[in-house]
Amino acid sequence: MSTLRNDRLLRALMRQPVDQTPVWVMRQAGRYLPEYNQTRARAGSFVALMKSPSMAAEVTLQPLDRFDLDAAIVFSDILTVPDAMGLGLYFAEGEGPRFERPLRDAKSIESLRLPDPDTDLRYVMDAISECRRGIDGKVPLIGFSGSPFTLACYMIEGGGSDDFARVKQLMYTDPKLMHKLLDTNARAISIYLDAQIAAGAQAVMLFDTWGGTLSAERYREFSLRYLQQIVGSIRREAEGRKVPVIVFTKGGAVWLEAIAAIGADAVGVDWTIDIGEARRRVGDKVALQGNLDPLVMLTNRETIEDEVEKILSSYGNGSGHVFNLGHGITRFTPPENVGFLVDAVHERSRRFHAGS
Amino acid sequence: MSTLRNDRLLRALMRQPVDQTPVWVMRQAGRYLPEYNQTRARAGSFVALMKSPSMAAEVTLQPLDRFDLDAAIVFSDILTVPDAMGLGLYFAEGEGPRFERPLRDAKSIESLRLPDPDTDLRYVMDAISECRRGIDGKVPLIGFSGSPFTLACYMIEGGGSDDFARVKQLMYTDPKLMHKLLDTNARAISIYLDAQIAAGAQAVMLFDTWGGTLSAERYREFSLRYLQQIVGSIRREAEGRKVPVIVFTKGGAVWLEAIAAIGADAVGVDWTIDIGEARRRVGDKVALQGNLDPLVMLTNRETIEDEVEKILSSYGNGSGHVFNLGHGITRFTPPENVGFLVDAVHERSRRFHAGS
Repeated sequence: MSTLRNDRLLRALMRQPVDQTPVWVMRQAGRYLPEYNQTRARAGSFVALMKSPSMAAEVTLQPLDRFDLDAAIVFSDILTVPDAMGLGLYFAEGEGPRFERPLRDAKSIESLRLPDPDTDLRYVMDAISECRRGIDGKVPLIGFSGSPFTLACYMIEGGGSDDFARVKQLMYTDPKLMHKLLDTNARAISIYLDAQIAAGAQAVMLFDTWGGTLSAERYREFSLRYLQQIVGSIRREAEGRKVPVIVFTKGGAVWLEAIAAIGADAVGVDWTIDIGEARRRVGDKVALQGNLDPLVMLTNRETIEDEVEKILSSYGNGSGHVFNLGHGITRFTPPENVGFLVDAVHERSRRFHAGS
Repeated sequence: MSTLRNDRLLRALMRQPVDQTPVWVMRQAGRYLPEYNQTRARAGSFVALMKSPSMAAEVTLQPLDRFDLDAAIVFSDILTVPDAMGLGLYFAEGEGPRFERPLRDAKSIESLRLPDPDTDLRYVMDAISECRRGIDGKVPLIGFSGSPFTLACYMIEGGGSDDFARVKQLMYTDPKLMHKLLDTNARAISIYLDAQIAAGAQAVMLFDTWGGTLSAERYREFSLRYLQQIVGSIRREAEGRKVPVIVFTKGGAVWLEAIAAIGADAVGVDWTIDIGEARRRVGDKVALQGNLDPLVMLTNRETIEDEVEKILSSYGNGSGHVFNLGHGITRFTPPENVGFLVDAVHERSRRFHAGS
């Protein structure tokens, strides 16, 4: 594969010196971009877009044409694994992801089989290969999955939820069965991420969107433990270099030290914590990724630049920071604001890397 | 007024010795109780129920008849103040609260007037008086309001929101106008809580439901600062004893030290933090209220008792803890589970107060 010309992301995730802070944006290939909406309309649905390697690669590359981003992330969904297990992923209009066949009894949990990534998830591997060809060494490509607990939430509820009543009832009343499901998910995700790395993913990220709804104790037992299982089992080297692993629990700032201790290279943080405080709390254990409030992206150039400045100053000198939002970019973001963000991060961060 | 026979709540909120940990439940007068639903049906709507002092007092007392709770909380809503400002509170079926006339321009914010609690919010004061007569000294009565920021969220959005895009855009792009609104809310809430205390509220609580959606810096500037303004300005004594103030920011565990420093007597915590850790972090600054995951209430007696035991053990010996859920009780809770909770807290907490 072609030589990587911009390795700032990988270096920052490994806490190695960089000339400026790398930046990418969660959901950077998304509905705020008119060209994305055109491709999606052509595909017919989100799932059809995701399952077409050529169209998935097309939208993955779109934001790179517009903005000086330091990474691409393969266009996909956090729920590909349960879909490959046969649960039937779909998106109801105006709602989040849903499953046609949610898990509603012990038998359906016990009979889950681990998907074969080379067949059942072939479309993701093909999308990764096609992305790598299209990116041609310009920036690294990130692969990802939802976390075992987040997958379990959707698998049991059948969709999003205000309170995750079904999931939590299972967890509280039949912890053994819940652990069975989470272990299955963790093993499936490990195999899946290994396959993504083999196909060309140069960093991988675990999205734990719903771990933050758990109590401190239950988070460790039912979410963090399985993130650790994955981090400890996947292949973390390819093409002669390290493949960094990022873990991100939305709403997990209160547990930051525990998350930083599971062996991942980097921890994503949302905007509820000051990034300088987060850095003091994790010490030199991990790099940090984040953490602009996505709603700032709805404002204007001046506000975006001010907020970028605050985050960079708070993080301070040296490497170990990947700039990102604290959650996915919203569809109502004016595209030019992403350009302002990326350029501000690059220009204003140089002074924090002087001598690197 | 009649002598207070059970003052455990007030004593624990002031960190004075108690014989057992007091317990009450957020939204304890609510839809999980069939008798509540009957009264509500008679009233015709939530707002009609809230605005009828006799029916509001009736539902306030209902949970006390069933369970050995250590407090009553006047049946009302966190949004009475903006309703009294003329915004028109209503509840759409199956949704949260909404306003008929949300604030959509600077003029509507600048022309807000402070409600007169003795006229515009008379129904709340009358409900408090009637509750006190009905409770007849059995337990203390808690008064409350939403926080200035939480009120602003609903006033600007017109209802709940996934991301509070309007509120945040105003905050980021016109902070001065946002501060004007928050100061108005804080002054109105202070007057309102003073009137509740004069009418008979023996403790007051500020519900900051949406402060947790802010960044660390913005939380301090746009929510906590105004909680502090209220805490510093209200009357905190009545009937010859202290009226404790509880502040509760849902999702605020990461900012616990800052919240504990504003001068309130007690801080509510949700279940994302271990209560023992919370106690170590706040030291002897404040009492703590919380923090069972409300979803535990959907399970069974054994699970509830186990979870109660964990929280009591984690808090440890001594006073300064009021047991509660970390959020309102859900409507699907079997009522008998509240009885199991209350009795477990009382019985199992005695050993932590030995010698008191």
